[in-house]
Amino acid sequence: MVSSKAARNSHGQDSSYFLGWQEYEKNPYHPTNNPSGIIQMGLAENQLSFDQIESWLESNPDVLGLKHDGASVFRELALFQDYHGLPTFKNVIVINFLVKQKENSYYIFISAPSTSHIAFLTSSLHMQALAEFMAELRENKVQFDPSNIVLTAGATSANEILMFCLADPGDAFLVPTPYYPGFDRDLKWRTGAEIVPIHCSSSNNFKITKSALEEACKRAQKKKLRVKGVLVTNPTNPLGTTLTRHELEILVDFICAKRIHLISDEIYSGTCFGIPEFISIAEVIGGSIDDVEDQVHIVYSLSKDLGLPGFRIGAIYSSNKAVISAATKMSSFGLISSQTQYLLAMLLSDKHFTASYISENKRRIKIRHDQLVEGLADVGIPCLESNAGLFCWVDMRHLLDKNTFTGEMELWKKIVYDVGLNVSPGSSCHCTEPGWFRVCFANMSTETLDVAMQRLASFVESGGQGEGSKGSRGLKRLMYWVRQLSLADDRTER
Amino acid sequence: MVSSKAARNSHGQDSSYFLGWQEYEKNPYHPTNNPSGIIQMGLAENQLSFDQIESWLESNPDVLGLKHDGASVFRELALFQDYHGLPTFKNVIVINFLVKQKENSYYIFISAPSTSHIAFLTSSLHMQALAEFMAELRENKVQFDPSNIVLTAGATSANEILMFCLADPGDAFLVPTPYYPGFDRDLKWRTGAEIVPIHCSSSNNFKITKSALEEACKRAQKKKLRVKGVLVTNPTNPLGTTLTRHELEILVDFICAKRIHLISDEIYSGTCFGIPEFISIAEVIGGSIDDVEDQVHIVYSLSKDLGLPGFRIGAIYSSNKAVISAATKMSSFGLISSQTQYLLAMLLSDKHFTASYISENKRRIKIRHDQLVEGLADVGIPCLESNAGLFCWVDMRHLLDKNTFTGEMELWKKIVYDVGLNVSPGSSCHCTEPGWFRVCFANMSTETLDVAMQRLASFVESGGQGEGSKGSRGLKRLMYWVRQLSLADDRTER
Repeated sequence: MVSSKAARNSHGQDSSYFLGWQEYEKNPYHPTNNPSGIIQMGLAENQLSFDQIESWLESNPDVLGLKHDGASVFRELALFQDYHGLPTFKNVIVINFLVKQKENSYYIFISAPSTSHIAFLTSSLHMQALAEFMAELRENKVQFDPSNIVLTAGATSANEILMFCLADPGDAFLVPTPYYPGFDRDLKWRTGAEIVPIHCSSSNNFKITKSALEEACKRAQKKKLRVKGVLVTNPTNPLGTTLTRHELEILVDFICAKRIHLISDEIYSGTCFGIPEFISIAEVIGGSIDDVEDQVHIVYSLSKDLGLPGFRIGAIYSSNKAVISAATKMSSFGLISSQTQYLLAMLLSDKHFTASYISENKRRIKIRHDQLVEGLADVGIPCLESNAGLFCWVDMRHLLDKNTFTGEMELWKKIVYDVGLNVSPGSSCHCTEPGWFRVCFANMSTETLDVAMQRLASFVESGGQGEGSKGSRGLKRLMYWVRQLSLADDRTER
Repeated sequence: MVSSKAARNSHGQDSSYFLGWQEYEKNPYHPTNNPSGIIQMGLAENQLSFDQIESWLESNPDVLGLKHDGASVFRELALFQDYHGLPTFKNVIVINFLVKQKENSYYIFISAPSTSHIAFLTSSLHMQALAEFMAELRENKVQFDPSNIVLTAGATSANEILMFCLADPGDAFLVPTPYYPGFDRDLKWRTGAEIVPIHCSSSNNFKITKSALEEACKRAQKKKLRVKGVLVTNPTNPLGTTLTRHELEILVDFICAKRIHLISDEIYSGTCFGIPEFISIAEVIGGSIDDVEDQVHIVYSLSKDLGLPGFRIGAIYSSNKAVISAATKMSSFGLISSQTQYLLAMLLSDKHFTASYISENKRRIKIRHDQLVEGLADVGIPCLESNAGLFCWVDMRHLLDKNTFTGEMELWKKIVYDVGLNVSPGSSCHCTEPGWFRVCFANMSTETLDVAMQRLASFVESGGQGEGSKGSRGLKRLMYWVRQLSLADDRTER
């Protein structure tokens, strides 16, 4: 009696990517409470720079307290509703006289003519601050017009909205492999659009080539699918690399020639810690004719660069007025809490904060990345050379018993159950070559990463046999829960 | 080059419902700054009880400050991600030992085995608190199981998700008229489902009857649409009435006989201020066989009862496991900010607060409702007798020049431009009889409502000619902006 979408369950949750999370949740590692548990290396979270945001919040207590110049803005925020795209709300005159820059931060006049103006203002300020933050991440080589931004509840929603705007059911987007496993859900499930993979290979370090694009196009045509665009991640998830100017130019030429769209998901743009520098698609199309700008759409989010996935801050940036208009209306299905918008508008408007955050965050990501790469190198495991992201693309082909995806799954199970590390197998990212794994490094302490490296070293040294059986691990897990329960009982009594 | 959805723009924003908002935004009433502006009576906002929530927040500063027992929970909340429905997350053992009730509120153990457990906990606590709040609004005649709740970014998202779960493109839902204008967008636009109206009329005070249901079904069949369910609002928007037990039983019999779904949108359940009492669909199906429970789904939100539309807190309640599973996965396209979930979990867990809030809020709504009804009666305008909602369904049929929808639009334009009140014409709610208007009363002060009543009295006494021309109003508006600009300049200089 449910819909075919609900019945088909085709959102991809049975992928080993999500199954690994499930195994981790059953038996999560903790240095003292559960030292034999699974270490989560399958989750691209950035836990490296929270202290910076916490310090800022402590210095600016009014922001969490929903106050401004000492007065509460609770009512205004409580009532905030995005009147999805009513033209008068885009009236710059209203914004200009109400928002003024003061030293390095913005402030708001609370006595606007109506509560909805104040609400709009928070949203405008947020868009303005986000546009400037996006430009800053690109070293101000490009500027972003806040009126071309649509705020969304995370990049998950941004990508789906763009698909609803650009593709009809049965239309296809080309996506280079390996790609983020969540795209099967985000791009296809509810929209009815299809993904046709652009096959990239280790032979050229998984670079996007003209011939790979053309070949994917032909495969789509054979399946009678109309190709409406290409979606890339830059920096690339799961590779941890940035697209070169040459790759970006190939992409722009391709979408020009085919008259199709390009979605550039740049949610990791603030994680690029090394050379070559990150080049946004916005820089490449900057000098182009207007027509190309209308075909290019950028997705951004604060989940990775600021480590705030729980706050659900995503955005679409597009110069295409029809897309912005439709996307703004669609954003009513996933608006961002005004309480959270207020926090982010204030945080990102502080230019001293953003400048120091961006550089310090990159420095810390580089240290953690190097720790992982060196740890793996010590036990003879190479990585794809990378300069961005919260993960490495790790080459374990030499550890496979057989060079097949069955072999990859066997190795993955050993790594999860015996070594106790949840990593993501390349097959879950639609990689065409068995033996690659995405390994995350920024969602744990340096000590935990050391433990992970030690475990991997024992595993490799033992010839890939692991150290524990599932039976003994089950017993340990039980002991762990018993210990937790008694701890909890102690706590309730205090 | 965009999708047919984006190109068609069929989300209904060109309705007079939204156009009225636009007119209001161009010239919003303010008692001193713009006393001749338009008064917004087209927006069902509840601004009557903010002081209660503000007092609570002042007494509980840790909640906004993201602290618990003095310690910051910022990191845990920042990392919160809903791992949409991984089975281990539903493990009650984990919840039970971590969440304990203490006096009248819940508290959390922060030292859970992993951050994701804490994140889940916040969400669980929120669902638990929401389930109890929903039961309290129904005087605990029914209980809600928190594991049957899916949190969504507002009711807008909840309704769309349910349509994605229950209907395929081309399937239809029957909806009684008059209905909330936003449903054309929420139910149809992206899902491809259709709405077939159940025609209700003033002859029986717009009650739902068996014959009206059957007649709608036949119309759907004629259009070759497969009927997948009925969607009702209870309390009803725009009528401000509650469905009777008899109507609810007719609905349940109907969906049983046809083996279809029933969505009961109960977002105004906390606004029922008078007799007859609100009866939730949950009470009617409570004693039924399990099969019916699987066909009934409730939508709830805190936007109306708590007046928090900006915080985007919606929910789906269903006993149908397939629906909950699919809806949970779909909720990743519109998750609620964890910062806001934390606030609401804490607020709603305080039973002293919820009990006093609910009764005081109803008392205030009743006073405002009576003020509107009496004001209208004084100038000879009747309303449909109502006991709930933030609006009245106002009968202005006697003020129509001609008894057509063209006549209704002419009257509406006079009311908006000449009288300066933005109300919503019945035609925007798909009412089949011209001359009805939805008039909101809870989004303004009692003084502003008085001004609105005085303006309407002048209009009726002048024989429906109004007092001003568009020209003079345009001049006034210009003067208003000039004044605002100079005020703003003053402020920047302080």
